[in-house]
Amino acid sequence: MPPLPDTPDLLLAGGDVLLHDGKWRVERADVTVREGRIQAVGRTDGRADREATRVSIRDCSGCLIMPGLIQAHVHLCQTLFRGLADDLRLEDWLVRRIWPLEAAHTEETVYWSALLGAAELLLGGTTAILDMETVRHTGAAFQALEGIGIRATVGKCLMDAHPEGAPLELAESTDNALAEAEALAKRWHNGAGSRLRVCFAPRFVPSCSGPLLRAASELAERFDAQLHTHAAETIVERETVLRTTGLEEIAYLDSVGIAGPRAALAHCVWVDVHETARLARQGTTVVHCPSSNLKLASGVAKVPELLAAGCRVALGADGAPCNNRLDAFAEMRLAALIQKPRLGADALPAGRVLELATLGGARALGLETEIGSIAPGKRADLVVLDLREPHLHPAGGDPVSLVVYAACASDVRDVFVDGRPVVLGHELLTAPIEEIVREADRAAAELHDAAQLA
Amino acid sequence: MPPLPDTPDLLLAGGDVLLHDGKWRVERADVTVREGRIQAVGRTDGRADREATRVSIRDCSGCLIMPGLIQAHVHLCQTLFRGLADDLRLEDWLVRRIWPLEAAHTEETVYWSALLGAAELLLGGTTAILDMETVRHTGAAFQALEGIGIRATVGKCLMDAHPEGAPLELAESTDNALAEAEALAKRWHNGAGSRLRVCFAPRFVPSCSGPLLRAASELAERFDAQLHTHAAETIVERETVLRTTGLEEIAYLDSVGIAGPRAALAHCVWVDVHETARLARQGTTVVHCPSSNLKLASGVAKVPELLAAGCRVALGADGAPCNNRLDAFAEMRLAALIQKPRLGADALPAGRVLELATLGGARALGLETEIGSIAPGKRADLVVLDLREPHLHPAGGDPVSLVVYAACASDVRDVFVDGRPVVLGHELLTAPIEEIVREADRAAAELHDAAQLA
Repeated sequence: MPPLPDTPDLLLAGGDVLLHDGKWRVERADVTVREGRIQAVGRTDGRADREATRVSIRDCSGCLIMPGLIQAHVHLCQTLFRGLADDLRLEDWLVRRIWPLEAAHTEETVYWSALLGAAELLLGGTTAILDMETVRHTGAAFQALEGIGIRATVGKCLMDAHPEGAPLELAESTDNALAEAEALAKRWHNGAGSRLRVCFAPRFVPSCSGPLLRAASELAERFDAQLHTHAAETIVERETVLRTTGLEEIAYLDSVGIAGPRAALAHCVWVDVHETARLARQGTTVVHCPSSNLKLASGVAKVPELLAAGCRVALGADGAPCNNRLDAFAEMRLAALIQKPRLGADALPAGRVLELATLGGARALGLETEIGSIAPGKRADLVVLDLREPHLHPAGGDPVSLVVYAACASDVRDVFVDGRPVVLGHELLTAPIEEIVREADRAAAELHDAAQLA
Repeated sequence: MPPLPDTPDLLLAGGDVLLHDGKWRVERADVTVREGRIQAVGRTDGRADREATRVSIRDCSGCLIMPGLIQAHVHLCQTLFRGLADDLRLEDWLVRRIWPLEAAHTEETVYWSALLGAAELLLGGTTAILDMETVRHTGAAFQALEGIGIRATVGKCLMDAHPEGAPLELAESTDNALAEAEALAKRWHNGAGSRLRVCFAPRFVPSCSGPLLRAASELAERFDAQLHTHAAETIVERETVLRTTGLEEIAYLDSVGIAGPRAALAHCVWVDVHETARLARQGTTVVHCPSSNLKLASGVAKVPELLAAGCRVALGADGAPCNNRLDAFAEMRLAALIQKPRLGADALPAGRVLELATLGGARALGLETEIGSIAPGKRADLVVLDLREPHLHPAGGDPVSLVVYAACASDVRDVFVDGRPVVLGHELLTAPIEEIVREADRAAAELHDAAQLA
């Protein structure tokens, strides 16, 4: 007997569902999913659904069903560098560790680095990312992400040997960099049912010529793709850009077309009120990376001020060597906490932070109509949080506070992307975790040897 | 056949052991435990041990064996208040939430609050605490902690109605407060094989008369017990103490005998260089609570400067409503991260932070010869960290960085206190976790109703 046209493929039954309509609210409801999208949220009478043989029913009683978390600035190619660059000043961090390690990457090490990072992300409830890879082998990252099932917008890192910001062994000619980026876009953009997308990702202003930046912006228009770069991470970067371009950094990026809803700028710790107003006016997304900004001693981005000015803000863990987790719960909690000594305990409350990690991330990816909240018609990127552990009790308080201040990545029980189960019962279904960990260990050791770190 | 005199009770076999001799180092070794103490660390030939029937052997291959973590400032009586006081300014936090909730506590709610907190602490690798309860029902907390098996030094909160710092419904007469504290000491100090100890715990200077503080200091001497209070948490507190006593806070505490190796002062965010020098000279412990200091907007304690001056420093999560976790891993990571924007990425490196959470905590409890590191003769308070999860890979980096920056409470596999297994395979053995969670939920709801929160 064929299923009824309305029969869902998946029914998440009996949980508390975290909904957003202007503000967060929770409803005890069932969520039905059909062909990868949320079909309905409400009480299913359930009889017809439960009798249809092709419906997969998942009991979510005692759980919170929340939108998949979105991290709009990660470097999966750096996952293998975790623990190799701790407590180092930024210059040493980049020059003595990150550049040599990225230069030593092979297709194989990029592949395992992406898989290790994606496994951690999915197990911790992150369903979508904006990822900047290294200069070479970005195709291997796409292959890894195609299999493991995360939603990913991925860019090859663009650097064309500007003297102050790109090491010789990583910089390319402008033409070669653009040609490879375009080839990647033709191969991967809107691949895997549009789960995989390409972005154009100049590393940061000091690594890139003006022509490279402008061409990246044009490619993004042509492919209807996002732009992804770093901006205003440190005071030194800000001063370098001012000195070499004659413009403040955000104004310069704007002048070369890296601005507007297509553009996601990681960090923006060092922007003044005029640049903040410009970011807001253009609809550019700022991707706040609190752990990274603290660990590399960059500073604290003025997120409440950015939001008050009308800026779009998302969250990200950045790369493993400057965090060292890829944990959206850790970033949310820290984002809320670090503003308070400066602005008071009511600064950046939990609900606002959770918006950054969901709706804000969706906007950063240009996917705000597709993901970022639980609503009929949106893609079914969903996280089921198990509320059994003692650190989530007593029950009955504000579930948003629970998610932001108390919950951990390890509380994530199930994860769905496009309605497909990628994690069930804390187990990754889409890739062999033991092999990933073993091969990542081996690849990291090879990389470490090849990089000949000082 | 009786066991040989040297036969251990417990053998942790095949793990990497985190040792401290001036600095941290790791050795692949077995740890043997006899009569609650570490007997040896090294390669056991193992045959005799393994054949002895009374030896319990625990395979720790693929794991890191580390000292149990110590939190030297918690309020277990507040665990039931988790999620009831978020994003509130300190005055509202205390007056509208914490005072009324503490005043509503019954013997039963104190009991479940302590059990819920201790369960979370043990499951997350915290083996020892310095705990400040509320004014009443501290005996119920001791009963809870006796059963669940954590090492705890617990103090009834002392407040005698000083006009600026104690609400009427919680303040006692000086004599009543002291009499109850003394009775608790007689009943519980060095109970449960000396696992339970009493401390004398004036809440903070504005809550206490001079005679109360001096008498607390005398009781601590008489019982050979610790003193535990809050100090210099906020700028308002600092100014209040200066105005009402005519002395700076640390000097005033010193003048009433709350100083020296017996004394653990939570927070010390607002101490100047003279007070820092005084803390160092006296050997007083500062208990750094980074999450709490951020969440309540108190500020950032200058821990690197305190350490450079020679101060003793420990770590603590404070209470659930100002954190909202009781997670030593979260505190370690945050303690390391928050100093760096101010002082550089090499400020307070991972190894120093792990010392605060182990050796520093042991000193705060006055137990530095007994706990805080893995060494023959010390009590066997041990944590086995499972290194399988992807966020702890690649393997082969610095294990101390791994513990501080990457590991989570959920990576704790086994926990031993006095050599007794309290957690094995992520399961709490010493108390029924489902009952604790259910009863804590129920108790919290009762408390919430009784407190009639505005």
